[in-house]
Amino acid sequence: MSEGPYATGAYGADPSRYQFIPRVLVFIKHEDSVVLVRRSKHKKLWPGRYNAPGGHIERGEDPHQAAMRELAEETGLQPKTLVLRGLIVAETGLSGSGILVFVFSGETDLTPLRPSDEGDPVWIRRGQWKTLDLLPDLPQLLELTFDQPDFFYLYKQPQECDGEDVRVWLSPVR
Amino acid sequence: MSEGPYATGAYGADPSRYQFIPRVLVFIKHEDSVVLVRRSKHKKLWPGRYNAPGGHIERGEDPHQAAMRELAEETGLQPKTLVLRGLIVAETGLSGSGILVFVFSGETDLTPLRPSDEGDPVWIRRGQWKTLDLLPDLPQLLELTFDQPDFFYLYKQPQECDGEDVRVWLSPVR
Repeated sequence: MSEGPYATGAYGADPSRYQFIPRVLVFIKHEDSVVLVRRSKHKKLWPGRYNAPGGHIERGEDPHQAAMRELAEETGLQPKTLVLRGLIVAETGLSGSGILVFVFSGETDLTPLRPSDEGDPVWIRRGQWKTLDLLPDLPQLLELTFDQPDFFYLYKQPQECDGEDVRVWLSPVR
Repeated sequence: MSEGPYATGAYGADPSRYQFIPRVLVFIKHEDSVVLVRRSKHKKLWPGRYNAPGGHIERGEDPHQAAMRELAEETGLQPKTLVLRGLIVAETGLSGSGILVFVFSGETDLTPLRPSDEGDPVWIRRGQWKTLDLLPDLPQLLELTFDQPDFFYLYKQPQECDGEDVRVWLSPVR
């Protein structure tokens, strides 16, 4: 367990291997409404746009705990259920690291939401999603999470000039 | 997308964040038998002991693809089903990286198995597990995967002297 750029850790952990920067994304529903967060204008990434609550997994957390924490921090909600619905792997252009997003969905009562420095959380009804300035992949993720029963794997790679390559794989949950 | 120790990648990827070295572990079943691999004697880690097939996720793969590839490489099997059953987060003692293991289960016919450099794959009947030199966490993982219906999150941290702290969280799959 000695430290160093390529020292090996417990369980044979080898930090010279390809790694993931882990995040969570949480879709919380009540009937046909879902909680989105309008990102603060001071955010470097995507200021003022709507995303689902979420953030990075910190050391000491499993993905489920991180999802509960981020949801509480950004909306004040404690959902009745919280289920892992899919995984996103995104290439980043960095030599050693991709991004891995754990996508959760859950249900809660139609509770008042508590804003944070991250942004303002709002209940959005299904028909209204299209009128908002959503993050680009949000419509597809809402569909994969709520409109089909399978577990999903989404892999995406940014393109040289613009846009991205996306592939989706669906797999039964049992 | 410029490179450098702490350059930011696509989608705001920040490699100074805590990261996971991603692995897969695959339990393939036929009736009451499961495929284990007796690790080659030349392996640095756990030589000669029995583990489930598995290995590292490589760049360009999602976890499901990695599980299919590792299973094919180590056993020759192409399972009829392959379902994500749980996640293991393990602290490593390294400053910036934990290990994340995606645990899959699947079913296949009772097919002949093909050995590889990694070790010899064998069909093991349930009653025989206890007589083998298994990796330490395998009995618990077999139980979590096959003897209960929920999705599991297992978090473990090696102890200073010996052994490890383990906590388990179960969550419905729907």
